[in-house]
Amino acid sequence: MKRFVLLILLLGCLTTWTEAQSEQIKLKWELGHSKDAKTPPSKWVPSIVPGAVQLDIARAEKYAPHYYAEHWKDYLWMEDVYFTYRSSFKKPALISDDRLYFRSLGIDYEFEIYLNNEKIFYQEGMFTPVYLDLTDKLKENNQLLVKIFPVPKLPGMQVHKQASQSAKPPVAYGWDWHPRLIPSGIWDDTFLEIQPSARVTDISADYVLNDELTRAEIDLTLSGRNLKGGKYSWILRDISGKDVLKAEGTFKSDEEKVPLTFDKPELWWPHDHGSPYLYTSSFSLFDQSGKQIQDQRSKIGFRRVRLVMNEGGWIEPVKFPKTRSVPPVQFEINGRKIFCKGTNWVPPDIFPGTITRERYARLIDLAIEANFNILRIWGGGIVNKEAFYELCDAKGILVWTEFPLAGNNYEGTPRYLSVLEQESASIINRIKKHPSLALWCGGNELFNTWSRMTDQSLALRLLNSQCFRLDPNTPFMNTSPVMGMGHGYYIFRNEATGEEVFQLMDRSKFTAYTEFGMPGPASVDILKTIIPSNELWPPKAGTSWESHHAFKAWEGNTWLCQDIIEDYFGKSGSLEELVANGQLLQGEGYKCIYEESRRQKPYCSIAANWCFNEPWPTAANNSLISYPDIPKAGFYAVKNACRPVLASSRFLKFRWSEGEIFSAEIWMLNDLPEDVPAGKVTIKLSAGNEQITLLEWNYNKMTANTNQTGPTVRYRIPYWTGNRFMLLLEVEGHPEFNSEYTLAYKRAGKR
Amino acid sequence: MKRFVLLILLLGCLTTWTEAQSEQIKLKWELGHSKDAKTPPSKWVPSIVPGAVQLDIARAEKYAPHYYAEHWKDYLWMEDVYFTYRSSFKKPALISDDRLYFRSLGIDYEFEIYLNNEKIFYQEGMFTPVYLDLTDKLKENNQLLVKIFPVPKLPGMQVHKQASQSAKPPVAYGWDWHPRLIPSGIWDDTFLEIQPSARVTDISADYVLNDELTRAEIDLTLSGRNLKGGKYSWILRDISGKDVLKAEGTFKSDEEKVPLTFDKPELWWPHDHGSPYLYTSSFSLFDQSGKQIQDQRSKIGFRRVRLVMNEGGWIEPVKFPKTRSVPPVQFEINGRKIFCKGTNWVPPDIFPGTITRERYARLIDLAIEANFNILRIWGGGIVNKEAFYELCDAKGILVWTEFPLAGNNYEGTPRYLSVLEQESASIINRIKKHPSLALWCGGNELFNTWSRMTDQSLALRLLNSQCFRLDPNTPFMNTSPVMGMGHGYYIFRNEATGEEVFQLMDRSKFTAYTEFGMPGPASVDILKTIIPSNELWPPKAGTSWESHHAFKAWEGNTWLCQDIIEDYFGKSGSLEELVANGQLLQGEGYKCIYEESRRQKPYCSIAANWCFNEPWPTAANNSLISYPDIPKAGFYAVKNACRPVLASSRFLKFRWSEGEIFSAEIWMLNDLPEDVPAGKVTIKLSAGNEQITLLEWNYNKMTANTNQTGPTVRYRIPYWTGNRFMLLLEVEGHPEFNSEYTLAYKRAGKR
Repeated sequence: MKRFVLLILLLGCLTTWTEAQSEQIKLKWELGHSKDAKTPPSKWVPSIVPGAVQLDIARAEKYAPHYYAEHWKDYLWMEDVYFTYRSSFKKPALISDDRLYFRSLGIDYEFEIYLNNEKIFYQEGMFTPVYLDLTDKLKENNQLLVKIFPVPKLPGMQVHKQASQSAKPPVAYGWDWHPRLIPSGIWDDTFLEIQPSARVTDISADYVLNDELTRAEIDLTLSGRNLKGGKYSWILRDISGKDVLKAEGTFKSDEEKVPLTFDKPELWWPHDHGSPYLYTSSFSLFDQSGKQIQDQRSKIGFRRVRLVMNEGGWIEPVKFPKTRSVPPVQFEINGRKIFCKGTNWVPPDIFPGTITRERYARLIDLAIEANFNILRIWGGGIVNKEAFYELCDAKGILVWTEFPLAGNNYEGTPRYLSVLEQESASIINRIKKHPSLALWCGGNELFNTWSRMTDQSLALRLLNSQCFRLDPNTPFMNTSPVMGMGHGYYIFRNEATGEEVFQLMDRSKFTAYTEFGMPGPASVDILKTIIPSNELWPPKAGTSWESHHAFKAWEGNTWLCQDIIEDYFGKSGSLEELVANGQLLQGEGYKCIYEESRRQKPYCSIAANWCFNEPWPTAANNSLISYPDIPKAGFYAVKNACRPVLASSRFLKFRWSEGEIFSAEIWMLNDLPEDVPAGKVTIKLSAGNEQITLLEWNYNKMTANTNQTGPTVRYRIPYWTGNRFMLLLEVEGHPEFNSEYTLAYKRAGKR
Repeated sequence: MKRFVLLILLLGCLTTWTEAQSEQIKLKWELGHSKDAKTPPSKWVPSIVPGAVQLDIARAEKYAPHYYAEHWKDYLWMEDVYFTYRSSFKKPALISDDRLYFRSLGIDYEFEIYLNNEKIFYQEGMFTPVYLDLTDKLKENNQLLVKIFPVPKLPGMQVHKQASQSAKPPVAYGWDWHPRLIPSGIWDDTFLEIQPSARVTDISADYVLNDELTRAEIDLTLSGRNLKGGKYSWILRDISGKDVLKAEGTFKSDEEKVPLTFDKPELWWPHDHGSPYLYTSSFSLFDQSGKQIQDQRSKIGFRRVRLVMNEGGWIEPVKFPKTRSVPPVQFEINGRKIFCKGTNWVPPDIFPGTITRERYARLIDLAIEANFNILRIWGGGIVNKEAFYELCDAKGILVWTEFPLAGNNYEGTPRYLSVLEQESASIINRIKKHPSLALWCGGNELFNTWSRMTDQSLALRLLNSQCFRLDPNTPFMNTSPVMGMGHGYYIFRNEATGEEVFQLMDRSKFTAYTEFGMPGPASVDILKTIIPSNELWPPKAGTSWESHHAFKAWEGNTWLCQDIIEDYFGKSGSLEELVANGQLLQGEGYKCIYEESRRQKPYCSIAANWCFNEPWPTAANNSLISYPDIPKAGFYAVKNACRPVLASSRFLKFRWSEGEIFSAEIWMLNDLPEDVPAGKVTIKLSAGNEQITLLEWNYNKMTANTNQTGPTVRYRIPYWTGNRFMLLLEVEGHPEFNSEYTLAYKRAGKR
């Protein structure tokens, strides 16, 4: 049997910790399945770990890709069978008092582990790592089995309601942009590891910053096994590698608490407000002879995050009888109130076992390109792997992390609560170490009628309690939305009321818009990879278009919304034209919401669209990015709307008719933490080759983090050809502040 | 030294438990004070324990009563000195392995305890009992000292804000109906106790009822000291004394957990929905020889309490962007939704040490007479003693219990959180055993601008977590009000807007009205006991009227509101006339709110006025009862408005003019859990000797717990003499359903 040290290979994709003085042994796996728990599999196929049982079977049985046509249906039978992973290994040479561990960072979802046919472990829950000492049970030749139970389904329930008594992400049970395809199996790094018997297994450096943010009081906690008498050192190094803080000592028991004071830390900031400064900590453990037997490194960032009252929140309500003021959702980072521009992140793949650091990096880079500073990790999906948080730490993006509850009523039965207690403790203790963590949230839309949880729900009281006990200095919110926050709408225009996004945003006054959607079709290139050519044009319900969410996904003709697109721009002559017009509407709708949310600052403090990415290629969706990482046109519209400084316009409808008085308010928006000099905006209309200058506005010096309201322009719409025109805002000497809006045009007497 | 067994004397006012096999020894106390912690008192005066340092000093120094004229000011100096209680006792004879304990159920607020000049204990917090084993430190002659620190005051703060870093009830720091007079000292039963060394110190029988409410799964937990090998029995007896459940066993450690199933329990109900059925449990501990060494009895009531969504709550909000649905505040007891009629309970005395079981009993009897089924124990005051909860258990009244936080921003400093953790655990573990407990609430008006706490406040997250861990089956609410609940208004008419309570209630739509006030003056008899005769008439600001809250207490001319009273009824010729008219307005205003809240059922589920009682005699106040237990006229108006079944009317203003069309909706209200047969209401107006019949309405059979809307009567107001008239609703054959309303009248052309 080969033994190889995977140190380099696994760097960073394993844990926050780089570990030396331990050896990791990769296992080779096979997979089989059976109808019940007692029958062993009759056939074994090669397995890729981490991965998913579905992918192993598909590879072995040569299934067509799940995302093409209706092939996702081929995978449905796998929900209800038992899968068994099998791996054989020889007992490795163990020097002195070395121990051999089986470690897995994640097995999805309910499973048993057998060593040499003896059951040695059972767990329900995919977010709690497995860490088993095999040493005393080893033979010369060993066999490990990991038996995966059928996916949990609450009897009598449909789609995602089936997940309402489990801590499994509900999205895969079927959502309006996710097919019914429920992943299962070993989904994160899994290996054998030889370790010395003395071992620090948890290093946490919780800290509190003083009011002036000039000093961190660190509670360093080192815990593990067989530590008594062992010496340790813990060193903090700055970005240049210089030692800035050091602690040394001898363990008196298996847990050592070391209070430390760190003066004048460089603070960690989100990328658009400063530098995401990270220190490196190095921990070393020495045996009695002074030999180093453990060496771990991790990153630490110092920042203070709070949710403070939104400006104007305290003066409401005004009238008696008085109810409460809104709950605060204004993020304050290091004492600075920050307008959060961001998006809702969903699992980047149906099969989380396939998500690599590189996939995370590409998507996070796109989020930064879009001028986002926050990601809401939606509770319907997975809690992301360590690589995700490491990247957010390093790149400076805030992470709103939800527990895996969404759209269901998670009743607080004793069994569910005990699984949730275990899973939440694992999630909190892992992620609380990351400076990018900005908020714990119980889950998605739990206080709405389609979920029916309340402040009394024991599951949410448990999560609040867990976060309070384990990570009190990170804010906690029961769910999104809470009072004063808004979710929706998800279409450009409500067909029942005729209300467009422009009117909807104008009548809205929320502290935060943490979900709002605008559907857009995928590009033609992508459509061709998922829809058979004979179904491509014209799009029809009942075809692959429908199971890829172009039809009957949500209200109206979602998500393709061909009727709305063609009402504004006329019947599409081709797929290309339909896609182009659909993507244009998505971009213009999203711009309206992001910019109007920003104009509502400071009462409003967050704008995050639904959604950023998608776990498989949809035909149409609210996402800005097609699977896996291909931006739609709307992505660039949003990127522009989220620039720190820009000229912006509020207008109240999308289509204007010949002879009507066009009217638009002009604004300058500034989210920068510094002042912006005075300047001039020229406001123009443009149609075809014509350009009309409406006004020049000299705006004043803009105070840091403050918008400026300008004039309202008015102009009688002339006769034009074509079905659209543009509003142009041109900032003298600062083309990077320019904005443009496309609007629909209708000639008099004809529609 | 005399030894006497206080068993009979202390029965019930001590704890829930009747204890045998232990001897309680009463101590005789003296009190002294000094300017600082180190100087011993130079003078000692007799002390009554439980009581208050202020009362001992006042008795010894012959102070005038604190409630007369401005004498409360004489007590102010006592806030800032150290008080020392002193008691001497001879070592009692201790048989075999008996131990001697010092026990106190409550010492207010921060204190040290010394035995023979050695400091043996320190505590901050008045709600955590003291339980000290003195045995090994005893001499033949012993001296106990209890040194009370000055009252806590946060520097730089005024009135009750001074209490915002302590768990001391803030009300006594000054409120708009409470003078500045901060009690201090030993406030609950305190004694020496001889106990065998083996002792069960905590018996808890937590239970969960099954969905059908036909079975209780009981978790009996017995814990204490030196229990290993001891035998125990625990017997549950029904109201006839019959044994219905029994557990016996031998302790294997100092904590024994015994799961028990109890079939078909009689359920505990609030008095207006059934019988407050209580079982008796008897616990016995036996030593190795079989001799009984402990015998304790307590009451258990089986009930399930939930907060469920108010009817109609789930269908809101309707529009996108959607925020959350309101939090539920509909009490469901044993599966039945109950409309809660009640009141806000404040401390029955400035000095809680003087509150006896008899005082509690008289007030609770008045609450039941008023047809109330719930008491909100307002968080500005104390958490009540055991006798209070025992009486509520026995008499069938629900108790909404708040932690001692009100109107402040209790910042989560480490010290404050640790005191709050200790105090809340003591409060929860004591009170959770009472079936009358219906709700834990973090405190009063913490989410409003005058407090500025939020969902993020660590103190509230701690309390939620404590309640979840220690008593998960009782609902928890952060504060009152939360979203959808209303507090206020507190005057009959808003002078700025002219809006009366009748219009205010008509435009309001809340799930619960948990505070609303109507001021009323005290009766003339009471006024004469608090206001010197030369100040009595006419009432003036700047006199004892003002410090007894008749002037400048809150908005406008509160609480006397002479201007409003005289605007409706003309200038008062005497104190008697002013008081009569003021008390009439209070009653009519309160009737409007209680009845309109009930008409808004089922969306609305609670009506509780501000406030029930008062801790000293005010000259005018929103209270229904003058100190200590004297009902105002408004009490009887409220009692009528809260009858389970009554005829009721909605009209939209108080004063009507000659020639105007009087208009009123007629309703029948039914809060009973059973149907009420059909009947007939005759609607009349009456003025002077005249009576006019407007209409007869035959109402249908009334469904259980459901109101019935009837016709609107209309009638042109004729010429009358006098300044008032009445609306009479007479129910044929059921005078107990009749209602009457007094309204103000104005002749045409003259005001």
